[in-house]
Amino acid sequence: MAKQNWKGSALLAPVPAVLVSCGNGEKDNLITIGWTGIVCTQPPKLYISVRPERFSYELIKQSKEFCVNLPTAEMARAVDWCGVRSGRDYDKFAEMKLTKADSFAVNCKSVAECPLTLECKVDSIVPLGSHDMFIADIVNVAVDESLLDENGRLMLEKANLLAYAHGDYFTLGKKIGDFGFSVRKKRNLKRYRK
Amino acid sequence: MAKQNWKGSALLAPVPAVLVSCGNGEKDNLITIGWTGIVCTQPPKLYISVRPERFSYELIKQSKEFCVNLPTAEMARAVDWCGVRSGRDYDKFAEMKLTKADSFAVNCKSVAECPLTLECKVDSIVPLGSHDMFIADIVNVAVDESLLDENGRLMLEKANLLAYAHGDYFTLGKKIGDFGFSVRKKRNLKRYRK
Repeated sequence: MAKQNWKGSALLAPVPAVLVSCGNGEKDNLITIGWTGIVCTQPPKLYISVRPERFSYELIKQSKEFCVNLPTAEMARAVDWCGVRSGRDYDKFAEMKLTKADSFAVNCKSVAECPLTLECKVDSIVPLGSHDMFIADIVNVAVDESLLDENGRLMLEKANLLAYAHGDYFTLGKKIGDFGFSVRKKRNLKRYRK
Repeated sequence: MAKQNWKGSALLAPVPAVLVSCGNGEKDNLITIGWTGIVCTQPPKLYISVRPERFSYELIKQSKEFCVNLPTAEMARAVDWCGVRSGRDYDKFAEMKLTKADSFAVNCKSVAECPLTLECKVDSIVPLGSHDMFIADIVNVAVDESLLDENGRLMLEKANLLAYAHGDYFTLGKKIGDFGFSVRKKRNLKRYRK
């Protein structure tokens, strides 16, 4: 395969497309974030990178709290709109008809319509250039009961989550395998033979 | 929607599933990484989080370089295998029949079969617990020419990239819209009427 070499750019894909909620109750806001990821498993930590000029930046910096709400593909229009518009001009919850829910472990509101919410407390802020990275502890996960099977196991594949790749929003498609499938093949074959 | 509250955990999804190549030419290795994301757009920076006990950890710490290779869904078995096995025990390039390609701006090898490679130089290492975060500058992007249209524009949707969600690998599914579609609707309608 012939390759072209381009200057460095933010071409990682696919990435999550999440609704981050923040604010102190007087002013609540939503910001759409693609620059997010898990940075540590134990203790569980994630980051979000936010431009300092964004309205949510000061809200998060002051309260040191935010929620990462995972939207469904049906919510793509609201996700996009919250990424384009500013909380300085709009009440985004009201405009997008999204419901504020009380969170469990933080004071800022969650998005009730999102089936999963990761409630976060900021640990540190790392300035990097266009964006500052907020590194945060995931202190609670709120999970919609409709995603749990009869044993209480999370069936996240039923959530119809959104992905973002190079400017486009996508659903998730076909499941290819689960972690470890490449080394479990023989054992599975034996199981089928029983 | 009734919610259950769980203790904090790494339940962000979907995330990328990438093959990170590293090493100094004497010893080259591959490690599958889901804990990665863009942390800054200008200058372009990403992170990968790696457990210090992983074989790749020392390779990256010593050379201060790595490549984030974006695999296709057809490569899911190799991606999974490289996440389960250790470079201490296997030559992963050879075992998975992946081709070492010279990179453009770093000394470590790229994966020729991956349509996109982000070549990275480590900027800082942040210890967080189970994982250390490598924050790195993206110094070059190698793009397969088969993904470019006649104007040289990247059609990343043709790459058939892999996503990872809660232990499962997925293809990307249906395209829902592009960034800004929620506010461009009227203009598009006008264009149709012409």
